Amino acid sequence: MQDVLMIPDGALADACLSFARETESRLILEHSIRSFHYARLVADHEGSVKDSAYDDGLLFAACVLHDLGLGTRAAGEARFEVEGADLAAALLAEQGLPTADIERVWEAIALHASIGLADRMGLLTYLTHRGVFIDGGRDTDIPPKRLQIIRTAYPRPANDTSIMDAIAEHAARSAAAAPPYSISAEVLRWRRAPS
Amino acid sequence: MQDVLMIPDGALADACLSFARETESRLILEHSIRSFHYARLVADHEGSVKDSAYDDGLLFAACVLHDLGLGTRAAGEARFEVEGADLAAALLAEQGLPTADIERVWEAIALHASIGLADRMGLLTYLTHRGVFIDGGRDTDIPPKRLQIIRTAYPRPANDTSIMDAIAEHAARSAAAAPPYSISAEVLRWRRAPS
Repeated sequence: MQDVLMIPDGALADACLSFARETESRLILEHSIRSFHYARLVADHEGSVKDSAYDDGLLFAACVLHDLGLGTRAAGEARFEVEGADLAAALLAEQGLPTADIERVWEAIALHASIGLADRMGLLTYLTHRGVFIDGGRDTDIPPKRLQIIRTAYPRPANDTSIMDAIAEHAARSAAAAPPYSISAEVLRWRRAPS
Repeated sequence: MQDVLMIPDGALADACLSFARETESRLILEHSIRSFHYARLVADHEGSVKDSAYDDGLLFAACVLHDLGLGTRAAGEARFEVEGADLAAALLAEQGLPTADIERVWEAIALHASIGLADRMGLLTYLTHRGVFIDGGRDTDIPPKRLQIIRTAYPRPANDTSIMDAIAEHAARSAAAAPPYSISAEVLRWRRAPS
């Protein structure tokens, strides 16, 4: 059980956590940490944790930083996924990560909400997408007992709408923040529909 | 004017055109050819035609093949963009293209409808997206006179709904063909909305 809940240590992980904590709401940060644990469960369940492309540190970075576009540093002038990817890339560059690794994290964050596409990109993008959407409630074939360990350690409040609220708020800031066929446009449509 | 309308020759271009012609409707093939011309106009207008990443043959392949997922060879079990990308990749592999080039075309086709994302990926993905959506009616800063050359050479029928019809038809084939936040899901929603 301890292993399932372990998070990477070191300067990179600390920098990611600090930046997310400083610029995101607590609920979005917790969603991001749960997303990492779910993503690693997927990697473990599917055996890709042993692939040469698997990198625990990058997966932690991608998951913990994936919603920076919903935080205080986002400009609201592009999709939140892209603004988050850019913020993450800048942070990782400051931390001295190689360009190829920064590009992988950028892609994972930029495409994390692209259902049916993210799962066909690189492993990091796939796992980040899966982790985020398992926390978002999508079906998974991971044994419920394993999921429960994470839900117990990092409980999600009942009826938590914080992510949808943040997406709607960001989406309303400009047309480019909510282009057609984006999760942002869809959330805006739901929120604006007559009830 | 001749230069604007020139299309690449050679075995690769012929194979792409033949495959598209055999598996797509005439209107979708013509949309695909116009998309290439618009994409090249964008590259010319923005100067990227001189970039080392620019490749006329790959741009032709990506644009001409971008809607294979709406043709007779698509299985209807995933997004049409992805099914088209897979079909294109298989064709290009048969033609002996290097893996890196096949991957670039795959990405360009898979992301061609992802507004606000495609324009932040590689040059080929960006140009393919721009070309396709200029033919779809999106605003562009390309001088109208230059666009008109293409519109005159390859006229689009008034009130042409062939692409939307094909997207709706593909989208209705399975849940995975029209996942949330996709152009396919959106087209299905329009078509099914009470009028």
